[in-house]
Amino acid sequence: MIGGGVGSNIGATHRYALRLDDRYELVAATLGREAGPSRELARELGVEEDRIYANCSEMVAGESSRDDGVDLVVVLTPNDSHFEIAKAFLERGVHVVCEKPLTTDVHTAHVLLEVANQSGAVLAVPHCYSAYAMVREAARRVRDGAIGRVTMIDVEHASGWASTKLEDSGHKQAKWRTDPDVSGVTGVVADLGTHAYHLARFITGLEAESISSHLSTVVPGRRIFDNATVTIQWEGGATGRLWATMAAAGHLHGLRIRIFGENGNLEWRHEVPHHLSMQSLDGTVTLLAEGMSSLSQDARQLNRVGAGHIEGFIEAFANFYGEVADEIIARRSNPVTSVGKLSFPSGIDGLRGVEFVSRVLDSHVAGSKWLSLNNSPVKD
Amino acid sequence: MIGGGVGSNIGATHRYALRLDDRYELVAATLGREAGPSRELARELGVEEDRIYANCSEMVAGESSRDDGVDLVVVLTPNDSHFEIAKAFLERGVHVVCEKPLTTDVHTAHVLLEVANQSGAVLAVPHCYSAYAMVREAARRVRDGAIGRVTMIDVEHASGWASTKLEDSGHKQAKWRTDPDVSGVTGVVADLGTHAYHLARFITGLEAESISSHLSTVVPGRRIFDNATVTIQWEGGATGRLWATMAAAGHLHGLRIRIFGENGNLEWRHEVPHHLSMQSLDGTVTLLAEGMSSLSQDARQLNRVGAGHIEGFIEAFANFYGEVADEIIARRSNPVTSVGKLSFPSGIDGLRGVEFVSRVLDSHVAGSKWLSLNNSPVKD
Amino acid sequence: MIGGGVGSNIGATHRYALRLDDRYELVAATLGREAGPSRELARELGVEEDRIYANCSEMVAGESSRDDGVDLVVVLTPNDSHFEIAKAFLERGVHVVCEKPLTTDVHTAHVLLEVANQSGAVLAVPHCYSAYAMVREAARRVRDGAIGRVTMIDVEHASGWASTKLEDSGHKQAKWRTDPDVSGVTGVVADLGTHAYHLARFITGLEAESISSHLSTVVPGRRIFDNATVTIQWEGGATGRLWATMAAAGHLHGLRIRIFGENGNLEWRHEVPHHLSMQSLDGTVTLLAEGMSSLSQDARQLNRVGAGHIEGFIEAFANFYGEVADEIIARRSNPVTSVGKLSFPSGIDGLRGVEFVSRVLDSHVAGSKWLSLNNSPVKD
Amino acid sequence: MIGGGVGSNIGATHRYALRLDDRYELVAATLGREAGPSRELARELGVEEDRIYANCSEMVAGESSRDDGVDLVVVLTPNDSHFEIAKAFLERGVHVVCEKPLTTDVHTAHVLLEVANQSGAVLAVPHCYSAYAMVREAARRVRDGAIGRVTMIDVEHASGWASTKLEDSGHKQAKWRTDPDVSGVTGVVADLGTHAYHLARFITGLEAESISSHLSTVVPGRRIFDNATVTIQWEGGATGRLWATMAAAGHLHGLRIRIFGENGNLEWRHEVPHHLSMQSLDGTVTLLAEGMSSLSQDARQLNRVGAGHIEGFIEAFANFYGEVADEIIARRSNPVTSVGKLSFPSGIDGLRGVEFVSRVLDSHVAGSKWLSLNNSPVKD
Repeated sequence: MIGGGVGSNIGATHRYALRLDDRYELVAATLGREAGPSRELARELGVEEDRIYANCSEMVAGESSRDDGVDLVVVLTPNDSHFEIAKAFLERGVHVVCEKPLTTDVHTAHVLLEVANQSGAVLAVPHCYSAYAMVREAARRVRDGAIGRVTMIDVEHASGWASTKLEDSGHKQAKWRTDPDVSGVTGVVADLGTHAYHLARFITGLEAESISSHLSTVVPGRRIFDNATVTIQWEGGATGRLWATMAAAGHLHGLRIRIFGENGNLEWRHEVPHHLSMQSLDGTVTLLAEGMSSLSQDARQLNRVGAGHIEGFIEAFANFYGEVADEIIARRSNPVTSVGKLSFPSGIDGLRGVEFVSRVLDSHVAGSKWLSLNNSPVKD
Repeated sequence: MIGGGVGSNIGATHRYALRLDDRYELVAATLGREAGPSRELARELGVEEDRIYANCSEMVAGESSRDDGVDLVVVLTPNDSHFEIAKAFLERGVHVVCEKPLTTDVHTAHVLLEVANQSGAVLAVPHCYSAYAMVREAARRVRDGAIGRVTMIDVEHASGWASTKLEDSGHKQAKWRTDPDVSGVTGVVADLGTHAYHLARFITGLEAESISSHLSTVVPGRRIFDNATVTIQWEGGATGRLWATMAAAGHLHGLRIRIFGENGNLEWRHEVPHHLSMQSLDGTVTLLAEGMSSLSQDARQLNRVGAGHIEGFIEAFANFYGEVADEIIARRSNPVTSVGKLSFPSGIDGLRGVEFVSRVLDSHVAGSKWLSLNNSPVKD
Repeated sequence: MIGGGVGSNIGATHRYALRLDDRYELVAATLGREAGPSRELARELGVEEDRIYANCSEMVAGESSRDDGVDLVVVLTPNDSHFEIAKAFLERGVHVVCEKPLTTDVHTAHVLLEVANQSGAVLAVPHCYSAYAMVREAARRVRDGAIGRVTMIDVEHASGWASTKLEDSGHKQAKWRTDPDVSGVTGVVADLGTHAYHLARFITGLEAESISSHLSTVVPGRRIFDNATVTIQWEGGATGRLWATMAAAGHLHGLRIRIFGENGNLEWRHEVPHHLSMQSLDGTVTLLAEGMSSLSQDARQLNRVGAGHIEGFIEAFANFYGEVADEIIARRSNPVTSVGKLSFPSGIDGLRGVEFVSRVLDSHVAGSKWLSLNNSPVKD
Repeated sequence: MIGGGVGSNIGATHRYALRLDDRYELVAATLGREAGPSRELARELGVEEDRIYANCSEMVAGESSRDDGVDLVVVLTPNDSHFEIAKAFLERGVHVVCEKPLTTDVHTAHVLLEVANQSGAVLAVPHCYSAYAMVREAARRVRDGAIGRVTMIDVEHASGWASTKLEDSGHKQAKWRTDPDVSGVTGVVADLGTHAYHLARFITGLEAESISSHLSTVVPGRRIFDNATVTIQWEGGATGRLWATMAAAGHLHGLRIRIFGENGNLEWRHEVPHHLSMQSLDGTVTLLAEGMSSLSQDARQLNRVGAGHIEGFIEAFANFYGEVADEIIARRSNPVTSVGKLSFPSGIDGLRGVEFVSRVLDSHVAGSKWLSLNNSPVKD
């Protein structure tokens, strides 16, 4: 694990998820810039002294020199360091889970995919919302035609986590997530918009064709854009909207998606992630819950504790890691195994996110002009 | 009453609303183009034989010639006839309630306002959603600063009423509402978008400054735009979105608004119109219901049957008519009485709607280019 | 109209409902004990001077002596006067709508039914909750076997209207509704429990066989029971519970019913009366809303303003009055017309309510002993 | 771990929970009656060969003879075996987590408490619903007077898991849970009713004084009672109801509690366990969610992944185990440490459950007669 040290929520979350199904062991780490506390935390987490590293390059060197070097690294550092770290490990055939955005520009994202392809290493991006059982159910149903041809997609990640100027109050995470030099000026697009974008792509199986976007800064004095509205033309004729903000005062999380088709619609909200709501043409709402016997195999295989017992964020994250583990194992016997359609987000998904961030900025700068998303082809 | 005859939902709704509080009496009518059934219906509704007219011009002539001519006419005909009818009555000092859109272009809307101003007649547009008690509560709270400075406005009227090609199936209303020659090519923008736009203006008290819009036709072969997404820059710095569609398959109605401010947000949905939801910075949701003693006077004065007893669409419409009646009576003693801020939508609101429709089309044609809304000044 | 004068919510509600569909005209009244204000209100409501009566007996005499005497009287006075008033009119063939509880004891309720039967007059009791479209839908579905054999019934009218000692604060209605001499010592059972009891009977079509009850007084110093829990054995083997309270602090209304069968369950809540929720064996929830095309004719025939436009309490009350009007008209041509199964509550329903109140008290006094409900036979 | 083997949901759940926070290690086990599969599962779970036992007595002997014998055993076997197993370990000072019902009669429950007291071992009963953060918040608020004096308590565990005759279809768990010889004739009272009973006691801090109950069998041919309604008189004057059923067709889980006080009410539902709803006297609803900064320390200390990220059943269970671990560690330095008020359910809570089960049966047999709950005193 690289990054995710003292005081990092996301670091702790990854560790809970890794532990839940008992398929991973934390054996090496460089958890943060402050050497003392980071080393102390790694020790508490059971990492042997000689595999607690001062920084990433030492870890690359150290683990490469061992016969029992790590199988997988988890990259939880600020955005601008993802590329170098991920590349170093992928080149050595080490599987990588890298937080979004995969990199800060399209070119480097392509390079990472190329490197991963050549070394045969798994590259995964934890848009873990797609690992909720009910998101899988949504994807299965939409892809199987439950609502007919998709006509409209409305997705939002409207969080309120930075509704006030947190970055001035000593909030460590707020500081780097609103620093254009670290997170990029597009800010919330990379931070939350990519989650929303992936969710829409994952459920519908569609790619965006073109976008018109508008960026703004809601909190006075903030140095990045903290609010983005995007109109999207999807392949197959669907139109839609995407909204990403970190300044929706009052919202705790705010990821939500509605997909309309010729025959009805479907809604999933992260606030109640164990539910999925569908609506038929005449208005009848059907409410499905995790664990129900009538769900698809895609949803049921992710269920641990039975209908009526809620699984939450940690479990979704653990689903992601479970599928990554399956893939790592599968590649041992068959290096060309491709990732199944309803599985974890891989490098391509990370790349699509980076492309999206890039074009959203371009469109905004051009006065909300419609621009095509190249969805650049990727060698398999 | 002009229009709203046999088979017209909106005609029946107006009549329920007019009856509820016993402040109006239906005394003259020309209810539709089919003379026989329209005459028959008017008779059933208690209109005297000599005040059932064959068409609007006969009615203008007939009522003008009587000492006890109508005080108010209600115009429920298709969009393209609003202007001529309303103008004829307003010129004679007859008060007019005219369905939205007020007219089909900005110029004629201005003329109507001018005529009404000169004759002293009331001109009202039944965006009756603003007459729900809980919308009044929302407006009172936002205007009084309950959520601080408004930062983002998200409003939608995403109906599914015409998700299929109803106009081909003999559905009379669908036919004229999707006929560009009658309703205008902007279709859903005039039809539903103006309701959403008024709701946002009413609750916040703000005017839009500029917009970027995108129109599309979801149902193949439809002759008008049935889907519109608009990004809006509001005065005071708020940004926002407006979505109007008649093709949100599965939705029965779909009017909903969320308003974010520096200190929290507020949501109202027409599906549960007796509730209003607020959320403070830390995420706490406060749910208010019609009739509660802690509501503002603006909301409480619209309550008929006590907390816990739901009032619905007819009651909201009756609230509108009650306020129109108050205004008509007030003008008898004081011809310059201006309409209060939290009251019924008047000619200016109708004009703002027509301006909005016009600019949405312009922006779309210009490739979602940002255009300013002139919000043309109106003489008081 | 008798009672329901100045300051009476229920009086105003009845009048809104009578007006909505334009099938009744208020022509005679004695609205309250305070002669001046009552007369004034009657005048405002358009009652001619010579048909505003000082009290009930004058009204009986006055209306009996006219050729155009009233067709229907509405009895809204406190419980202990219902019998005498209703009897006087029924004997003269005047149709009667009498508020619940029909009378204060089983014997007098029987007498009223007998009198009505002999004179051919309609006797109706406004348990108007059964007139909501979605309650009709529930009844139709349960009776048609949608959830299989009914196994459990859970109904409650848990209101918070008198959670504090309102009767000491000058609240007129609270005073007589908590006065054992006027309302009876069972208090909340007659007041709200009869609504809940009728709702369960109406939806399921079942009669209760036996009960075990417990009464208590939640608000210290109150002179009646303000809380009642009843366990019920229903015919056909279903068991169930009924809870009536006026001291559920925080609840605005609190009427709710859940019915379980072999194959699923169904829930209706007065808080959202335009919705009906069903749940199948595997947990899938189906949410139905008023106005949907897929509803039964029983529900659809009560719909005025189209799907997506909420109808509320006044409309439900108006549904009740519409069906009473239908019945009055039907009897003109066919004096033995019996009331259809899914229609307004009649005298028998009033009687069943009075029997229920009586046995609930008996069981409580006997230490929650199980007692049978005789459901005394009624001559048709 | 004893019991909870192949095909056991609850066994898997305990293991997930034990793993989540990395405070326990599974080192010895006898997981089920079928020796082969149980041994195989234990091996997979990482238990060393010599600590996989054929039965409980071998495990007692084996672990007692080791210096590094288990600190804690988890008893997941059918109800009738709890007493012997728990007693054997407690006598040897081994801490015990024993599934509910603690034992099958009041006497043996007392014996277990006595044994635990003498040996100083922790005895804990996983009514883990009390370990949800929002249940803690509820308890803190009620105990701190947020709703005033408690007036009414309404709790239900109305599950639909056995709405059909599962026990005839080869469903292993259904078989023993509906076998009177294993689970006792009271069936659902011990199985689910004890959870509901504990939840009410936990949130209010009150003990029940007397009860009147009614038991029934909803599913024809079932050999135990699968439905129980109980009226309860609580200390301090509150009255209330408890409903436990396993035949609420359509319900996935169905645990829910509403608590009313002089000044409002509070509701928690297991279907959305991360929310807590409160309602003040005027009807205003306040909705709180896990992770909010305004919650009490009792709730916040149980939060792992931040506001807006749901924690579910496994996390609640892990909270239980975390507090048991804290207590075990605390006793090492201070053998008389008593369990804090808002902490895990201990032996006393298990005993209260057994007493409740016993009196519910007695009251039912006596025709719903009111019986006092002795709440037998327990030596500390």
